[in-house]
Amino acid sequence: MISAELRERLLKFRSDRDWEQFHSARTLAIALSVEAGELIEHFQWIPEQDVDHVVSERRDELASEVADLAILLTYFVHDLSLDLEGAVRDKLLLNEQKYPIDKSKGSAKKYSRL
Amino acid sequence: MISAELRERLLKFRSDRDWEQFHSARTLAIALSVEAGELIEHFQWIPEQDVDHVVSERRDELASEVADLAILLTYFVHDLSLDLEGAVRDKLLLNEQKYPIDKSKGSAKKYSRL
Amino acid sequence: MISAELRERLLKFRSDRDWEQFHSARTLAIALSVEAGELIEHFQWIPEQDVDHVVSERRDELASEVADLAILLTYFVHDLSLDLEGAVRDKLLLNEQKYPIDKSKGSAKKYSRL
Amino acid sequence: MISAELRERLLKFRSDRDWEQFHSARTLAIALSVEAGELIEHFQWIPEQDVDHVVSERRDELASEVADLAILLTYFVHDLSLDLEGAVRDKLLLNEQKYPIDKSKGSAKKYSRL
Repeated sequence: MISAELRERLLKFRSDRDWEQFHSARTLAIALSVEAGELIEHFQWIPEQDVDHVVSERRDELASEVADLAILLTYFVHDLSLDLEGAVRDKLLLNEQKYPIDKSKGSAKKYSRL
Repeated sequence: MISAELRERLLKFRSDRDWEQFHSARTLAIALSVEAGELIEHFQWIPEQDVDHVVSERRDELASEVADLAILLTYFVHDLSLDLEGAVRDKLLLNEQKYPIDKSKGSAKKYSRL
Repeated sequence: MISAELRERLLKFRSDRDWEQFHSARTLAIALSVEAGELIEHFQWIPEQDVDHVVSERRDELASEVADLAILLTYFVHDLSLDLEGAVRDKLLLNEQKYPIDKSKGSAKKYSRL
Repeated sequence: MISAELRERLLKFRSDRDWEQFHSARTLAIALSVEAGELIEHFQWIPEQDVDHVVSERRDELASEVADLAILLTYFVHDLSLDLEGAVRDKLLLNEQKYPIDKSKGSAKKYSRL
């Protein structure tokens, strides 16, 4: 998703300003929630058929919100020393078992969460 | 954050089941909001001093929530053809200008959002 | 929305258990965010045309989520001694000016937030 | 919480502008999520000891966010014909059984959600 080099720059940005003190798992989780709210705000009242139009009109803004989410996730993963790659693999494996292709293909009923 | 290989597996997981139909920028944004809520739920009522304890007790659960967020972000970025690396760089540049080190170092007043 | 009598019972429930200590404006705001996430989860992946079906199928669950939101709001308003009635009036006045009927009627462009 | 008279004014505000078309259980739930995010944003990075200070400094803004939440809840409850009073009573009864006073008093372990 983002390069190791960019991740190092993000960590340096934070330490240069002595801002690690404001980041705990909790404050980062709150911030992720706030940013997710800002992302969904772009699609708040619009009908589903207008989603693509909003996407093309607001690409830069959406990219900016997504950047915020990615940055916060980067700090969270780093600070808790999480193995994100491993956690995603585990989740993928779990979902592959939960939703075998033959039973799940195209089915709205089976589609709960990914 | 996650490897190109893992991203391809995530995309294949979705297409194998013909589930792209359920993913729009909007539904993915909603899902990101839901997952962020699940992450913060772990820290809901606990005092700040207990955050580290919760983190060590629930590492696997937290990793799982973060995996969900990373997966959704992966789909969002892919589907909207966003340049995530570029968007994060832009955000970093913007923040470096907004918060020059000499003015921002250690200051809670200047610390609004990252 | 909810009666003064019910509000008193909610406050008594909390004080009987000596649980005010867990409620700050912040923890209550976090909880509101978590509960809002649980509400939207019911509508996460479904197409707009299926919303009514979900509503009729899950009325009790939805009522339960809404109850959680109303309870948290009750504590928040009480603890901060907010004049909710007055704040809603002010917001209504503001919106009536922002969106005069002749300019706003039926218009998606004008409809941002309520 | 808010008077029947004010609720009627809120409903009239919406119908005068022919805006019911933008409100479904889903869009209202999304909006509640967005507003909850805006509320928690006020407390995002601040340490717990500064919460009271933020509350006294930003009373009007906080009242405004809470008003938004109350307004959306009002529409949601009205549109789904929910018995909010009844749902809150049920939730209170459930919690009174789940958390008997003698076992729950002052206990952080028992305090999960209210």
